[in-house]
Amino acid sequence: MKCNKIAVVGLGLIGGSVLKALQGFEDAVFYGIDQNEEVLSEAKSQGLICDAGLHPDEITRIADVTFICLPPDATVTFINEHTFKKNALVTDVSGVKQAIYAGICNTEIDFIGGHPMAGKEVNGFGASDADLFRNASYLLTPTEKNLPEHVALLKKMADYMGCREIVLTTPQEHDMMIAYTSQLMHIVAVVLCDSERLDASKHFSAGSLRDCTRVAKLDSRLWSRLFLLNQEELVRCIDEFSHSLQKMRDLIQSDNEAELKAFLEACSDRKNRFLA
Amino acid sequence: MKCNKIAVVGLGLIGGSVLKALQGFEDAVFYGIDQNEEVLSEAKSQGLICDAGLHPDEITRIADVTFICLPPDATVTFINEHTFKKNALVTDVSGVKQAIYAGICNTEIDFIGGHPMAGKEVNGFGASDADLFRNASYLLTPTEKNLPEHVALLKKMADYMGCREIVLTTPQEHDMMIAYTSQLMHIVAVVLCDSERLDASKHFSAGSLRDCTRVAKLDSRLWSRLFLLNQEELVRCIDEFSHSLQKMRDLIQSDNEAELKAFLEACSDRKNRFLA
Repeated sequence: MKCNKIAVVGLGLIGGSVLKALQGFEDAVFYGIDQNEEVLSEAKSQGLICDAGLHPDEITRIADVTFICLPPDATVTFINEHTFKKNALVTDVSGVKQAIYAGICNTEIDFIGGHPMAGKEVNGFGASDADLFRNASYLLTPTEKNLPEHVALLKKMADYMGCREIVLTTPQEHDMMIAYTSQLMHIVAVVLCDSERLDASKHFSAGSLRDCTRVAKLDSRLWSRLFLLNQEELVRCIDEFSHSLQKMRDLIQSDNEAELKAFLEACSDRKNRFLA
Repeated sequence: MKCNKIAVVGLGLIGGSVLKALQGFEDAVFYGIDQNEEVLSEAKSQGLICDAGLHPDEITRIADVTFICLPPDATVTFINEHTFKKNALVTDVSGVKQAIYAGICNTEIDFIGGHPMAGKEVNGFGASDADLFRNASYLLTPTEKNLPEHVALLKKMADYMGCREIVLTTPQEHDMMIAYTSQLMHIVAVVLCDSERLDASKHFSAGSLRDCTRVAKLDSRLWSRLFLLNQEELVRCIDEFSHSLQKMRDLIQSDNEAELKAFLEACSDRKNRFLA
């Protein structure tokens, strides 16, 4: 399937990176939509989009493919409140999928949920990077309703962006997996920083503190939404983690060296298998 | 103070790195002690030590400075069971300090506790690296009993190894700080891996999982000892962390978006101040 016109909505870190990473894809023409006109001008002056002066509807009505790179609620709102080219491929990049599907009521489009697993601790178009998705996983949640050629096209685009793995999954499985692989990690990093101990740690720390808390520098509005939109599975994940932590705490408290060592070894082995 | 003979006991990752990083220091002659003769031969063949065939006592009796780079219990045993040059500077590298001081009963030496804050997920002499301590913090716990010229010499050596910060502290403060900055981080990383969810995460994960669990690949025997030797402060640290985690969990569970966002923002701000 030939793709002539690609639109990216929201030229922040992710949207800007999608736009940059897709340059040159099948000789497509690119369009950008953003509330910030300076960002659009900058994208135009960098040759990333063909026109910085179009109204969003002028773009969505002609785009063959539209990437919505907005926070989850804004993603749903944008899709429901705009008119797209009939049966156009529309995709998003948000970190939850069931809530997006539940919110969309625009039936004129062919929507496929997407989630490129990459990010940075800094936001905005200025931080966007054509190589952001290099070697990342790109999760897609197509259903039987989607046009097979659209699924194939999106896989081809993710591949073009440099992704190493393109995983087809369901919105349910996506949210279940992400509760652990991404959301729990962010929660742990944040909670580790909820301590006055951190303030005095500068000269007493090494790589473990740096790495365990790296993602604690986050966009609090976006992440509080993401957590609440995946509440049930996330709370389950936190409870499982708390249970294991309590077990380890009790082994330390009770001086149970043999079981403590066995526990550490089992976890370390599991990490090694993961890395293998 | 001129330092002529430097001995390193235990040529693993840390000991090997100390030996390599100190090469050329004040024209000193280097000696190595290790149970593994192949490692000694290798160190000799690399020109890092002057002789691979000496008995440990032949070395400790003539060394001006001895770095004990063994696990904590072995450090105490080695110091108590060997004869050192009278008033020689002896130092260690272990991750706990109060237990080391409490265990040492050799009164003939001038012992100063040390802890270079650097490591890797791999062990052994083969992984040792002259640059391991570059830009790291080196914690020292001298007391009034130590010869001031020994404290000055050890600071000079840490500086020579490339350390950015040389921090003088007490064994008590060291153990209190390290419970958080290092031990809690390792515990969180390990506990995150105590989940079958990890096994299925390969293609659903990105940088946050990789970084939060990086140090979970650890030496279970060494770390179970380190945890138990700092039991009281570490349990306090885990309990504080659990308390914060529970608070965040309840904010998610109760859909309290305003407070959840404020919590995330406060933690993110604290991380930013730490990075500044």
